[in-house]
Amino acid sequence: MNELTVQEIINRALAEDIGPGDITTAATVDPDAEGRAAVIAKQAMVLAGIDVFLSVFLTLDKAIDFSCSFLDGDKIKKGAAIATIGGPMGVLLTGERVALNLLQRMSGIATLTSKYAAAVEGTKARILDTRKTMPGLRVLDKYAVTVGGGYNHRFGLYDGILIKDNHIAAAGGIEKAVSAARISAPHMLKLEVECTTPAEVKEAIAAGADIIMLDNMDIVGMKKAVRDIGSRALVEASGNMDHRRVRAVADTGVDFISVGALTHSAAATDISMKITG
Amino acid sequence: MNELTVQEIINRALAEDIGPGDITTAATVDPDAEGRAAVIAKQAMVLAGIDVFLSVFLTLDKAIDFSCSFLDGDKIKKGAAIATIGGPMGVLLTGERVALNLLQRMSGIATLTSKYAAAVEGTKARILDTRKTMPGLRVLDKYAVTVGGGYNHRFGLYDGILIKDNHIAAAGGIEKAVSAARISAPHMLKLEVECTTPAEVKEAIAAGADIIMLDNMDIVGMKKAVRDIGSRALVEASGNMDHRRVRAVADTGVDFISVGALTHSAAATDISMKITG
Amino acid sequence: MNELTVQEIINRALAEDIGPGDITTAATVDPDAEGRAAVIAKQAMVLAGIDVFLSVFLTLDKAIDFSCSFLDGDKIKKGAAIATIGGPMGVLLTGERVALNLLQRMSGIATLTSKYAAAVEGTKARILDTRKTMPGLRVLDKYAVTVGGGYNHRFGLYDGILIKDNHIAAAGGIEKAVSAARISAPHMLKLEVECTTPAEVKEAIAAGADIIMLDNMDIVGMKKAVRDIGSRALVEASGNMDHRRVRAVADTGVDFISVGALTHSAAATDISMKITG
Amino acid sequence: MNELTVQEIINRALAEDIGPGDITTAATVDPDAEGRAAVIAKQAMVLAGIDVFLSVFLTLDKAIDFSCSFLDGDKIKKGAAIATIGGPMGVLLTGERVALNLLQRMSGIATLTSKYAAAVEGTKARILDTRKTMPGLRVLDKYAVTVGGGYNHRFGLYDGILIKDNHIAAAGGIEKAVSAARISAPHMLKLEVECTTPAEVKEAIAAGADIIMLDNMDIVGMKKAVRDIGSRALVEASGNMDHRRVRAVADTGVDFISVGALTHSAAATDISMKITG
Amino acid sequence: MNELTVQEIINRALAEDIGPGDITTAATVDPDAEGRAAVIAKQAMVLAGIDVFLSVFLTLDKAIDFSCSFLDGDKIKKGAAIATIGGPMGVLLTGERVALNLLQRMSGIATLTSKYAAAVEGTKARILDTRKTMPGLRVLDKYAVTVGGGYNHRFGLYDGILIKDNHIAAAGGIEKAVSAARISAPHMLKLEVECTTPAEVKEAIAAGADIIMLDNMDIVGMKKAVRDIGSRALVEASGNMDHRRVRAVADTGVDFISVGALTHSAAATDISMKITG
Amino acid sequence: MNELTVQEIINRALAEDIGPGDITTAATVDPDAEGRAAVIAKQAMVLAGIDVFLSVFLTLDKAIDFSCSFLDGDKIKKGAAIATIGGPMGVLLTGERVALNLLQRMSGIATLTSKYAAAVEGTKARILDTRKTMPGLRVLDKYAVTVGGGYNHRFGLYDGILIKDNHIAAAGGIEKAVSAARISAPHMLKLEVECTTPAEVKEAIAAGADIIMLDNMDIVGMKKAVRDIGSRALVEASGNMDHRRVRAVADTGVDFISVGALTHSAAATDISMKITG
Repeated sequence: MNELTVQEIINRALAEDIGPGDITTAATVDPDAEGRAAVIAKQAMVLAGIDVFLSVFLTLDKAIDFSCSFLDGDKIKKGAAIATIGGPMGVLLTGERVALNLLQRMSGIATLTSKYAAAVEGTKARILDTRKTMPGLRVLDKYAVTVGGGYNHRFGLYDGILIKDNHIAAAGGIEKAVSAARISAPHMLKLEVECTTPAEVKEAIAAGADIIMLDNMDIVGMKKAVRDIGSRALVEASGNMDHRRVRAVADTGVDFISVGALTHSAAATDISMKITG
Repeated sequence: MNELTVQEIINRALAEDIGPGDITTAATVDPDAEGRAAVIAKQAMVLAGIDVFLSVFLTLDKAIDFSCSFLDGDKIKKGAAIATIGGPMGVLLTGERVALNLLQRMSGIATLTSKYAAAVEGTKARILDTRKTMPGLRVLDKYAVTVGGGYNHRFGLYDGILIKDNHIAAAGGIEKAVSAARISAPHMLKLEVECTTPAEVKEAIAAGADIIMLDNMDIVGMKKAVRDIGSRALVEASGNMDHRRVRAVADTGVDFISVGALTHSAAATDISMKITG
Repeated sequence: MNELTVQEIINRALAEDIGPGDITTAATVDPDAEGRAAVIAKQAMVLAGIDVFLSVFLTLDKAIDFSCSFLDGDKIKKGAAIATIGGPMGVLLTGERVALNLLQRMSGIATLTSKYAAAVEGTKARILDTRKTMPGLRVLDKYAVTVGGGYNHRFGLYDGILIKDNHIAAAGGIEKAVSAARISAPHMLKLEVECTTPAEVKEAIAAGADIIMLDNMDIVGMKKAVRDIGSRALVEASGNMDHRRVRAVADTGVDFISVGALTHSAAATDISMKITG
Repeated sequence: MNELTVQEIINRALAEDIGPGDITTAATVDPDAEGRAAVIAKQAMVLAGIDVFLSVFLTLDKAIDFSCSFLDGDKIKKGAAIATIGGPMGVLLTGERVALNLLQRMSGIATLTSKYAAAVEGTKARILDTRKTMPGLRVLDKYAVTVGGGYNHRFGLYDGILIKDNHIAAAGGIEKAVSAARISAPHMLKLEVECTTPAEVKEAIAAGADIIMLDNMDIVGMKKAVRDIGSRALVEASGNMDHRRVRAVADTGVDFISVGALTHSAAATDISMKITG
Repeated sequence: MNELTVQEIINRALAEDIGPGDITTAATVDPDAEGRAAVIAKQAMVLAGIDVFLSVFLTLDKAIDFSCSFLDGDKIKKGAAIATIGGPMGVLLTGERVALNLLQRMSGIATLTSKYAAAVEGTKARILDTRKTMPGLRVLDKYAVTVGGGYNHRFGLYDGILIKDNHIAAAGGIEKAVSAARISAPHMLKLEVECTTPAEVKEAIAAGADIIMLDNMDIVGMKKAVRDIGSRALVEASGNMDHRRVRAVADTGVDFISVGALTHSAAATDISMKITG
Repeated sequence: MNELTVQEIINRALAEDIGPGDITTAATVDPDAEGRAAVIAKQAMVLAGIDVFLSVFLTLDKAIDFSCSFLDGDKIKKGAAIATIGGPMGVLLTGERVALNLLQRMSGIATLTSKYAAAVEGTKARILDTRKTMPGLRVLDKYAVTVGGGYNHRFGLYDGILIKDNHIAAAGGIEKAVSAARISAPHMLKLEVECTTPAEVKEAIAAGADIIMLDNMDIVGMKKAVRDIGSRALVEASGNMDHRRVRAVADTGVDFISVGALTHSAAATDISMKITG
């Protein structure tokens, strides 16, 4: 992760939540009071974002004392104390919600991803994310996927060539679209073509695609496509990937399975911050 | 919603996704080609964010032609065509993901909220959101809640006084905390106190709280609290609100039920954009 | 005050004043020279903004040595040394004007507010500010009011419901406007209605307003309104509040007196910075 | 004025005031309602900022209808209708305060400046502003001074060389400071030296200063200095310029009189916006 | 190019040049005066950036009238009229320098690139740019390279894996570095390894590199490497590419030749803007 | 230089280059590995920007260890070790390109400027830069000119009055343009007039110009102009200043020679960063 981008996200989130000031804390908490809080996992989870969590408080005050015996990627049991944090009581109370919102979001994605990753364990298939991330938070969302055992697909429209049906139609066919991309796109980027039929797969291979995306195919279709493609291209399965179906997909021999749900529908994990003194 | 804030969110999301450029579209689509697309509901939903969806494309190009027969808040059936959009083909393809990410997020929140709202129909209880929103997207998240039939709790730490256990501890008791807030906080803000026991409820009422939040109480406890409080304060129920439990909570007579899940765990609704010509 | 917002104000002010560089200082001052300056009150005042003053210099250089025996809110006598500041001579000279502009503005507001506050001493009336603040500096302006013994009205259009004549006209009457606001506005916000006649006051009370603003009424009218309203709502007096008239207004029994002049017409206090070595 | 800078000021002011949204207007005003308002001068004034006023509303909505028969610099009588503005009623209500805050500030400066300018009429002396402007609003403050008949001193630390006592001390004397500045500073900038005694004036002239600032001298001292300097440099009088004293200062023959009060202590003019339909 | 990024560059450049205002134009040009100017090529060139040029003026004023019979990539003869532009005279004068700075920079890069591209014509080698671009202007620099007949290498550290000597050393050898990258990097990115010796080339091929960069090799070495690599990887030549040497490099059979000078040392082309009426 | 502006340039350049992350370094370098690098001059040069170079790394990580025995302005021999830098290996690799891009640009300008400065040594002529700088980098470009022994012309349109042919035409003649500028422009700015003929020079002197710019005159013309002007104004020679011609121009007796090439066409100096351990 680019730390400067993460800091911008934190600043924005704090500005959004604090606005002109935390009036409850200003009214009730002595500015000189020190406090200490425990961060508690209220459900089992894969931890992600603990550095981001800490950075929220450090943004508000340099004098934060933090201790945590877990790292991103660790499996945390329900009820475990994830970390303790100390510093000015007002800062702990003011930063709590933003810090938890980020940690719960990121751990939620990592936890969900870990289930998909576990489901395909032992196959060569990798679980990939998509661009269906929360607007403005992509860098965090994609990092959390890797923490959960998944892998990143392209980050945006700029670091991968993914020729979809509409591009193909606009270019006048798969072959023309692939040639055009080969000529103008940076040579370091692989070229992926979305295919929905065996005929398209054949055409994409002939055109020299590096990666074939099998879009919304059934298991039988995917198996056949994997066989037809052989080692001539990498294969990505995509479309309505369900947690229960993902193993069968992996068993077809595809290289990648992309799952929008990892980031567009991950539930927040339940984490609380308890003032302890 | 403040339109200037919404435009900033859109600009940021486009910058994040497009980066230095949409290389696939640049390579395969004639810059002069015009296109047209249908926006399709792939599941039943409550629509939210259709203006934001359009604004994404207008940010990329002024010459967008848009027609939509639904408004935010409308119930859309699975399979329905929500809208059609026309303009430069390249702009449709480049803007698609960001526009859908926003629309799917917002409709997801509205759809989830509408279920909670339906569950309490006929009672006086209102479904409220919380500050557990996606960092940087609060203005959209909270708007989507209202579209779904919910109501907004405070927007941030600045537009409501909510005295929680930690504030109470720091101030030296409920009475002291409430007095301090009364003195220093803006007079236009009501004062809410979080209570977990009947004793705290009693104390908060005595201190003159405008609103009592019953935190994680059971149904029996809430019923008793509502009775004890009478008309002396408004009552909000909070904590682990489940879709199935919410009716029983409403039936206790509380005025508000706040539900973090509306925004921290709403799944995206499934919406697609299909180029039609 | 939200420190992140204050820092943005300081950065903006420094950028505005320094632009591409302080050419006089660059030309005439040895970059290694150290200096020391005294901050002198050239008139009696209530001090406000001393932390902001210091932050200006800290923004330019971390190695600033500062000592000050006063706190915001302290009454300073004409001629008193408010503080001494040491550090690189060039930094002292470059930051001086911005630091003083902020300190003089804030102390000016606090000093003016303290006169209004003194005038109503012994009554229950509080002096309130308004939204007539300097664009971009509201957070400082409103803080300075509290330092001077005043209280803050709402910070913006988002943290208080204030139904004015035009809203009433647009909604079709006081009753309709109040009902509409009750339904859609966040429940933590009180509802204030601007009234100019006894009839309007009566109507607003009937509609359930939490606060009645008496707009531009004379002393007799205010007295009667206070009596009529009793304990059913808080009462704010507003409009052309003059320093000499404010006591008579307070004696009518209103709860609040809002004074635009505190922030739209406060004169800067006279403070200088004298290099002493 | 640089329009891009002005637009940034407007955006910032609107963000500050509207925050997540104008909840009163949202609750009470039909989004399709159109309105019309008159802008009324409630005191005599010199108008300044009428384009900025309009831009505030145009920032919120392009469909604003505006008519105004005055220009910046025009003298407006008490009670006169300055302009009428029409458009969506909600936009008129939401933008009103920010638009007025800017117009009242700018007209306040222009009005105050015009009094100083009138006082020196018939002499060659020009009234100058200083850098004692409102942080973040300098471009507006300085424009308003010119509208009122004053002239601008340097805009910041970057567009003029003004050697003050501290620079002189740091450089080791007037002659050394002037030489150093001559060498390193851009050749298009004149070089001004602050002097408090006749000896310093003499030294500054000998060193080749283009402009001599007479700091806090009395009338006799200024007269003598003007005579001594002759045509060898321009002369600026500075320090505690009072509205009543300024004519006597002008009569000493100085070229410029700089007045901090124009911008640090100008009261807002009283202007209101009245919905008329 | 991402138009939003280009607009930010333009805004920044205008802010930098105009600052608080164009005082010469404000003083000497009637705000209502209209003007017209011819843009003249004072040397032969490949045009690049004509849309950016126009956007500078459109940023200052919507009412610009522009006519240009050339497109980016066209060869322009010395003395040719590239375009004519009309609008408010003040806007033409204020925007001139920024618009020309951008156009001259971009055309300079395109012109230089076209020379390198011409030198390798008839070979399969493509001229590539590098990340040695002007900080903040990369999107323009890289676009200009394509206009001149070159191709883009990766845009940044995020859209290509380029394993250099230091990465190899840090990872403990080429094989380890390549494996590590294969595992963690997005699958859409090709993997390039920088090699300086035949042994390293062999190792990189064995490790499965997609692209081999031959760093600072002589012609003989490159020829041999191309032969050794065969079709197993693409080959990029890099290091001290001189305009005269580039043909010999291309003749070795490499696929790409990257040239830092295209962007770090391109001279501006000479273009002037002449007011014609 | 204004350090806040420099920091913004660095942040922007890092964001541009790193984007969502340095994937090669993330994949191949142990986050805990420490490294050390030597900064080597691969050609003779005048050093400029060494503090900026360091700041790039400090922006990424506070724990950077830097040692450098040269200062900006020092002449560096080909092959010399300019500095050594130590810190986290990943930070050294990630920051390298941006840091070098800035240092090479700035040293390139300083080195080129030093040649022009050397060419006029012994005359009174100063080498000046122009506004033909890289958009967004002016503050660095202009600083580098001074490091190389040149001087700064105005920074922008705001800190100098330069009346060119188009202003003259718009104002209706030199005399009118000069008078208008005298009246409205800040008094601290000198007034320069661009002249192409002896008649214009005469007119400008008569109008009271402080500086005369001789635009594109030949040597004979310049000599005559210098003689005619005498001590009544400073003289600047401008237009197509070639490195070989500049001495002859200086010998005509002009005060300043402005050279656009210093910033619009300076080649980057060749500097490399070598990891040493």
